[in-house]
Amino acid sequence: MTPIKDFNDLINHLRLLPQRKRVALVCPDDSHTDYVITRVIAEGLADLLLVAGGKCSSVAVELAKDYPDRVALVVEPNADSAARRAVAAVRAGNADVLMKGTINTDNLLRAVLDKECGLLEKGCVLSHISVAQIPGYGRLILFSDAAVIPRPTEEQFEAIVGYGTDVCRRIGIEQPKVALIHCTEKVNEKFPHTLYYDSLKRKAAAGLWGDILMGGPMDVKTACDAESGELKGIVTPVTGCADMMVFPNIESGNVFYKAVSLFARAEMAGMLCGTVAPVVVASRADTGDSKLYSLALACL
Amino acid sequence: MTPIKDFNDLINHLRLLPQRKRVALVCPDDSHTDYVITRVIAEGLADLLLVAGGKCSSVAVELAKDYPDRVALVVEPNADSAARRAVAAVRAGNADVLMKGTINTDNLLRAVLDKECGLLEKGCVLSHISVAQIPGYGRLILFSDAAVIPRPTEEQFEAIVGYGTDVCRRIGIEQPKVALIHCTEKVNEKFPHTLYYDSLKRKAAAGLWGDILMGGPMDVKTACDAESGELKGIVTPVTGCADMMVFPNIESGNVFYKAVSLFARAEMAGMLCGTVAPVVVASRADTGDSKLYSLALACL
Repeated sequence: MTPIKDFNDLINHLRLLPQRKRVALVCPDDSHTDYVITRVIAEGLADLLLVAGGKCSSVAVELAKDYPDRVALVVEPNADSAARRAVAAVRAGNADVLMKGTINTDNLLRAVLDKECGLLEKGCVLSHISVAQIPGYGRLILFSDAAVIPRPTEEQFEAIVGYGTDVCRRIGIEQPKVALIHCTEKVNEKFPHTLYYDSLKRKAAAGLWGDILMGGPMDVKTACDAESGELKGIVTPVTGCADMMVFPNIESGNVFYKAVSLFARAEMAGMLCGTVAPVVVASRADTGDSKLYSLALACL
Repeated sequence: MTPIKDFNDLINHLRLLPQRKRVALVCPDDSHTDYVITRVIAEGLADLLLVAGGKCSSVAVELAKDYPDRVALVVEPNADSAARRAVAAVRAGNADVLMKGTINTDNLLRAVLDKECGLLEKGCVLSHISVAQIPGYGRLILFSDAAVIPRPTEEQFEAIVGYGTDVCRRIGIEQPKVALIHCTEKVNEKFPHTLYYDSLKRKAAAGLWGDILMGGPMDVKTACDAESGELKGIVTPVTGCADMMVFPNIESGNVFYKAVSLFARAEMAGMLCGTVAPVVVASRADTGDSKLYSLALACL
């Protein structure tokens, strides 16, 4: 498979897959969600289980009427029961992806993380993968964790690399290049995660994540710009062409997300990983397109 | 004074100041430094004390010959003694700014931080201020700390805000707007610095830094984009128009620096603060212009 280079590619790829996934969407009741579900159905990207919490947009009602074989609409009394119902559908195998509509993330996560009836199995690491399409970079770049794990432990870093390289392969990158991000190139006890980085590199070399290349610690510029790497005398197979960046903490990941989406006009997609099915929890400030790309990513 | 909106403004402003500052530059022996010192002299931005460490570029020699009243050149046996000599000149009041040329940052900092003969007085907080000119933002934006303090304590945050608002005023912003950056808007014990943020806001309200506006915790997008703030229901006098961003840790500050300079074509300036005189320690990967802007910033 030719690697998927941007989100248009991603949408086209999904359109051509022989089997459509089914997305359980919680509370379809805002204009962004209307945009997403309309395009998803019009372009054949997925089938939908719309779970309304009390009220529901007219677009959702019409879609369910017009496409009865592809769109199911059920109505629950409120957002919380809608979330529980959608999660139950995923657990029962009636949906492949869970997606947030017009419900607070906290409320949706309460259902997702419920110990008895949720989607996170015991011992699994919940994390968040973002994918950025940054003008000028020429390829999609994944990064993690900008949203869930404040300060990853070594075990959590290990899971993060696993989720990220898995997504890389699903977008057609056979040998993912993973950059471990920090502000310097030095492994230093003042920065405990850089010690984890050394250990991660040993595990990468031993094949824990299959055929991947891993480098770091290095800064964002070194990871994404060959010239910067050369100026600093850092030449690794990852320098200048990272497919995935592992950030040392949530603050730095979040700053990357916000800085490139605001100032570099990057388009973004993202999803939670570690759950029995991907969960799309796009934020209020994300664009309709960003929500569509996130859904597409989760359906790969 | 009309606020300085970009680095061209800054250069023009400096050119028109009645009194030129004197910059002690350590080891003028590379093409970027040649570019900086040539423009500094040609445009009347500052006078120079060039302290060579053994060798020295021909451009430096010529400048000293052609402008004997504005450029002094002294030669020390090596880079370390050049650093000590330049630091001594600053301590003696013979220079107002210290700047790194072709010397490793570590070697320069050894002289700057020397307990007996250095530039950091006991009890002072060393920190780094960056200034970014980001296409589309319409004003300069300061941020800190991307280079020195890994995880600021409350006392260090306090110093950082002091240095930043001081620079804001020197570029003509009478009431600096300071955004305290985090990935969420919540003050949360999981993130100890957000507790400091609450305390900083009380101190700002009490007038510790004079007339400033402070908001946060908020993310980078909320700080720099009014629409994002509105979408999230966050409306503060800082939202969408921050003059300064305080980052919670070095990793997030560094990621902002690298991400906007690489992907948003931002121009950057930066300097160390807390020392008896500003210290410019631009990195190898910075452009010649970036080094010139840093010098100009330090000479304000």
